[in-house]
Amino acid sequence: MALRLCCAWISILLLLPGLSDGGKLLVVPMVGSHWLSMQEVVEKLSERGHEVVVVVPEVSWQIETTQAYKVVTFPVTQTLEELDNSFQEYVATHLTEKPFPLNALAMYKASVHVFSTFFGQCKDMFRSQETLRFLNQSSFDAILTDPAFMCGPILAHHLSLPFVFFMRGFPCNLHFAAPQCPSPLSYVPRLFTFNSDRMTFFQRVENALISLLELDYCNGFYGEALKLSSEVLQRDMSLMDIVNSAAIWLLRFDFVFDYVRPVMPNMVFVGGINCAKKKPLPKEFEAMVNASGEHGVVVFSLGSMVSEIPMKKAMEIAEALGTVPQTVLWRYTGKAPPNLPKNVKLVKWLPQNDLLAHPKTRAFITHGGSHGVYEGICNAVPMVLMPLFGDQMDNAKRVESRGAGLTLNILEMTSNDISTALKAVINDKKYKENIQRLSDLHLDRPIHPLDLAVHWVEFVMRHKGAPHLRPAAHDLNWVQYHSLDVIAFLAAVVLLAFFISFKCCLCCCRRCFCKKGRTRKAAKAKSH
Amino acid sequence: MALRLCCAWISILLLLPGLSDGGKLLVVPMVGSHWLSMQEVVEKLSERGHEVVVVVPEVSWQIETTQAYKVVTFPVTQTLEELDNSFQEYVATHLTEKPFPLNALAMYKASVHVFSTFFGQCKDMFRSQETLRFLNQSSFDAILTDPAFMCGPILAHHLSLPFVFFMRGFPCNLHFAAPQCPSPLSYVPRLFTFNSDRMTFFQRVENALISLLELDYCNGFYGEALKLSSEVLQRDMSLMDIVNSAAIWLLRFDFVFDYVRPVMPNMVFVGGINCAKKKPLPKEFEAMVNASGEHGVVVFSLGSMVSEIPMKKAMEIAEALGTVPQTVLWRYTGKAPPNLPKNVKLVKWLPQNDLLAHPKTRAFITHGGSHGVYEGICNAVPMVLMPLFGDQMDNAKRVESRGAGLTLNILEMTSNDISTALKAVINDKKYKENIQRLSDLHLDRPIHPLDLAVHWVEFVMRHKGAPHLRPAAHDLNWVQYHSLDVIAFLAAVVLLAFFISFKCCLCCCRRCFCKKGRTRKAAKAKSH
Repeated sequence: MALRLCCAWISILLLLPGLSDGGKLLVVPMVGSHWLSMQEVVEKLSERGHEVVVVVPEVSWQIETTQAYKVVTFPVTQTLEELDNSFQEYVATHLTEKPFPLNALAMYKASVHVFSTFFGQCKDMFRSQETLRFLNQSSFDAILTDPAFMCGPILAHHLSLPFVFFMRGFPCNLHFAAPQCPSPLSYVPRLFTFNSDRMTFFQRVENALISLLELDYCNGFYGEALKLSSEVLQRDMSLMDIVNSAAIWLLRFDFVFDYVRPVMPNMVFVGGINCAKKKPLPKEFEAMVNASGEHGVVVFSLGSMVSEIPMKKAMEIAEALGTVPQTVLWRYTGKAPPNLPKNVKLVKWLPQNDLLAHPKTRAFITHGGSHGVYEGICNAVPMVLMPLFGDQMDNAKRVESRGAGLTLNILEMTSNDISTALKAVINDKKYKENIQRLSDLHLDRPIHPLDLAVHWVEFVMRHKGAPHLRPAAHDLNWVQYHSLDVIAFLAAVVLLAFFISFKCCLCCCRRCFCKKGRTRKAAKAKSH
Repeated sequence: MALRLCCAWISILLLLPGLSDGGKLLVVPMVGSHWLSMQEVVEKLSERGHEVVVVVPEVSWQIETTQAYKVVTFPVTQTLEELDNSFQEYVATHLTEKPFPLNALAMYKASVHVFSTFFGQCKDMFRSQETLRFLNQSSFDAILTDPAFMCGPILAHHLSLPFVFFMRGFPCNLHFAAPQCPSPLSYVPRLFTFNSDRMTFFQRVENALISLLELDYCNGFYGEALKLSSEVLQRDMSLMDIVNSAAIWLLRFDFVFDYVRPVMPNMVFVGGINCAKKKPLPKEFEAMVNASGEHGVVVFSLGSMVSEIPMKKAMEIAEALGTVPQTVLWRYTGKAPPNLPKNVKLVKWLPQNDLLAHPKTRAFITHGGSHGVYEGICNAVPMVLMPLFGDQMDNAKRVESRGAGLTLNILEMTSNDISTALKAVINDKKYKENIQRLSDLHLDRPIHPLDLAVHWVEFVMRHKGAPHLRPAAHDLNWVQYHSLDVIAFLAAVVLLAFFISFKCCLCCCRRCFCKKGRTRKAAKAKSH
């Protein structure tokens, strides 16, 4: 009995290490799949005795709420259908073949449109006086936010609260530019270039050109956010102004997957944070996996946000899946393709991480969303990647460059391509070996990313920010930061020194020659 | 009984989290005070079941050995007296007043001399065939080394083993240049400039000039190491070649004290690692502290490596110490100054960290060695800093810039200066408040630096290095890294485009004017 009591007491201590005095945290999440991993941090913070308030639009998209934290909703003008349609349109644009640059333009337009639709919810929040009054009166210690839609940081400025970002990245390197982190163009590939960190000369040229477009691209993309922030904060705001005072950047990065690059001390890397929760498989899935026999299973999902793909594509995929002996568990909510083979089980939902953790799982077909890729790495499952939009193509290229998977172009792939790639990652041992190595490296860390994230959010709550981690570079202008004034000054000094030396030499030479001349003249005069 | 057994078992588990299969680690330490914090890591690794071998010269300097690890010694040609004399000469140079640039030159010469003397021990190691045979046959997993004298990394290359650095820094920014970490000159002050991260224009110019001298300075300083490495490894070696393949850089940095700057993913910051061990005060010290009454004590040490200072200086200091009501515990092994006041107790040794941790300690007079400064920060004791050599002046300036202490120039300070500074840090609350804030920030970390260091050494042992944390920048030359080829190419394209446009315009204009001219001529001809 004493033994049991003691161990129970110890386990409580282990579960809640260093339980601090409760603080008050405001959470401004991003709707959609981004919430998946953030929710775990929020729940853990709540468990640790903090009062956590999550502010969510009344018509919310993919945000499940639980008893673990308080949810405050605000009224919005859009319907769920409008949000759904806008996102499906965005996905559809990526599934439509067009020549370059029409495809890039169409994707840019679709991105601006989907952003504008979802950003409408942020505008609605700032219109709701009741919500603002509540937030103003609540005396929060800090804000935790996914800033992809910029709503969180604008609210943080409005409430004058320190804020922590939890994110994968902005589309235009803003997550490195804003904290003043150098990103050498020569080996840090820009998003959407699909380059690796080892680039040819022309890839480096491309990288440089893309980086020149970045700020313009983002200013256009975040046009509405810039307008709203200037209105709300009553001063001109740039994108940098909005985000560069983030106290801590919790970035879902890990260098087994992401390319090694300079970082800053206020960046905390929590890639793989979403693999934290492990549960036993639900009975129906356990049964399907067990029934798969020696060949095991393949897990297939294009993410929680894509409900349907064109039937032609679905049929091609179905045909390919029939060529492998594995049982394929395919999460798909669209209309089932008529040629669905016997070894493919369509499901509306699947416990992705728990399925990937099963020893019978042989491969993972994924759209390359960062959550899925990390789950693949955590569980050492080789991948076939079919990227659709956003950072997915870059993620896929990263996995492929590590030899841990194969990437397919969803627009161009044939049934045969899919089949070949799937068979390769299942049967060619090198894929399993590579992903196992990445997995071993990824999981060998001094502290779990979830605990790390929780620590830094609490740190900002306790100390009202982290100003000691803010570089002095923020106080310099572009010319000063790059030492162009110093270079110009030193160049001027060197030139002046050369000029003076030259003049002195000239003067000396002249005097010398004049003297000689005069001496000669005098000598001549004498001789005459 | 059951309760006690259970708790004992739990505490063993807590003490040894994740005890892994024992590995084999070779440790190449640096003699002197650098060993102080490294020893704790080595002991902990040994505790965790690894076979740790520390390779030490037979005539060792300040390296205490314990039962915790195996020590392998090699014969050396120098006597302890020679080492002592060389170091005392080095310190004496820093205590002798000379005008600029004679002082800088004298210090450089003294540094090269002391380095050369101690590096002689490394040469002796490579001469000892028996030692090399033993090391070659021992199949170590990795090397942990303080590379200040470059012996460890040369040995690591010789044995083809992955290596981990444990250090405060190289004298010429090599600890950032070698891992390809950008160090913007505009806000990253170079060592020995004593500038902060907020520099005036001319300080930035000075910073740029010093950075130009750095590599030359270091090539001279490490000349013997370069020669030895080329001999031993049978190929031309640069400083970069010797150090840039370090798997992990365990740097005794912390950004409450060091200036915020870009870093790299294979840098692990373990500043304050030396505050780990806390013991109760020995009885004689406990008695002295208790007898100090309401005024408390001042702890005074110029470090374990400085045994004596000139008598005139010692008398000035003694006079100043008599002006405060606190009891001063002064670690001093030289001849006691005749004017020693009653409130000053000279001791040959003092338990510095434990004394600083005592609530009765009011101030800390230190030479600004990084170990001492971290102990001051860990225990929130305001400091009076009297830097002597190496990075001490820069450390002192950092503490002063944080408002947590006052710096004195040991060559110029008068008794009155010391007294004023000491009274200020004791009586002006702002110093205590500032150091308390730094201390709170420093101690609020997700994992203790000792555990962090142990984790990363074990990581390198388990995975035979950390190649996934090596940036692709290592494969680029200087021109490529800075994208100068890309800039030149783009500039050429732009110029060519301008040139072609200009030529086209010119051509069009000419045609236009020629036509007009011809038309006019024709018209004129007609009219005539």
